Amino acid sequence: MELLKQRILEEGTVKNQNVLKVDSFLNHQLDIELLNNIGLEFKKRFQNDNITKILTIESSGIAIACMTAFHMKVPVIFAKKSVSLNLDESCYESDVYSFTKQKFYKIYVSKKYLSSEDNILIVDDFLAMGSAASGLIDIVKKSGATLSGIGIVIEKGFQDGGRVLRSKGLRIESLVIIDSIENGNIVFR
Amino acid sequence: MELLKQRILEEGTVKNQNVLKVDSFLNHQLDIELLNNIGLEFKKRFQNDNITKILTIESSGIAIACMTAFHMKVPVIFAKKSVSLNLDESCYESDVYSFTKQKFYKIYVSKKYLSSEDNILIVDDFLAMGSAASGLIDIVKKSGATLSGIGIVIEKGFQDGGRVLRSKGLRIESLVIIDSIENGNIVFR
Repeated sequence: MELLKQRILEEGTVKNQNVLKVDSFLNHQLDIELLNNIGLEFKKRFQNDNITKILTIESSGIAIACMTAFHMKVPVIFAKKSVSLNLDESCYESDVYSFTKQKFYKIYVSKKYLSSEDNILIVDDFLAMGSAASGLIDIVKKSGATLSGIGIVIEKGFQDGGRVLRSKGLRIESLVIIDSIENGNIVFR
Repeated sequence: MELLKQRILEEGTVKNQNVLKVDSFLNHQLDIELLNNIGLEFKKRFQNDNITKILTIESSGIAIACMTAFHMKVPVIFAKKSVSLNLDESCYESDVYSFTKQKFYKIYVSKKYLSSEDNILIVDDFLAMGSAASGLIDIVKKSGATLSGIGIVIEKGFQDGGRVLRSKGLRIESLVIIDSIENGNIVFR
């Protein structure tokens, strides 16, 4: 997706050889016109897969999921990172390691909103080691729903997540794949 | 907003006299068609206010902000509840008390994305005691931006937030106001 590559080159900042910040349009400030184009692109790639729901994880996945769901005309479910007084019913749970926050956390999805009749598209902002995606995949499995595929905005191709998930036969659609960000230079696949 | 009242009556669950759960369409599963109508309604109410950015707070505000921003053609900024490796620059901070999680937390907005030239619309899912809204208002003030108004999906009119904020001269547009949820009955204003 050329538009996205261009924005990453123009506004992305490289913190070190593993961390790319895209806070100006994807992770803190949100460029809704770009997100709309991202949603249209995911729709194009998954429109023949009879998706019934889009699953993501709070917080950075929500905007992407919303704009994709708007075009695909299905609901979104976002996995929660904590159980509050507002989420006390029976939940599917999984464990996720956050490399940016350097700790494990649990994610939760209420059993009410996923069933064996669902055909799920997972979307997220980044795919690096695949920890968040694996947690969401685990929750889809536990629910008995079918996982149609995973839509990723930015895949870090130099980390192992994409390779490992594809080797399990999963369909991963990444809008851009970055092969390296060494010495501050972003190299796309 | 009749459509929203209807959904609250059909699907909202009353946990006690203060807690209304709307997890099936607003806080965990997201009904994007409804959110689209919410976005259109906020646009209608604020379209003559020269809004430059929509400010909200992760996570439940993001979907509302996105669908509003989509129609108003402005960017969203969502305040973060923690500082990760991806948000290490200079931030505006404020303190918010969460009644659902029963603890104080800090919220952060990077100084890069709010300036004295901005004309801000704050949006959020609920207005109860006004703690989250006050934190966001505090951040807008610290940035020197102008606050045009606050768009709320569900105001709990029996709690003090709306009254206190309006008494300060702030413009609050709530799509529905609930006057009481005693004995499991939801009474709209």
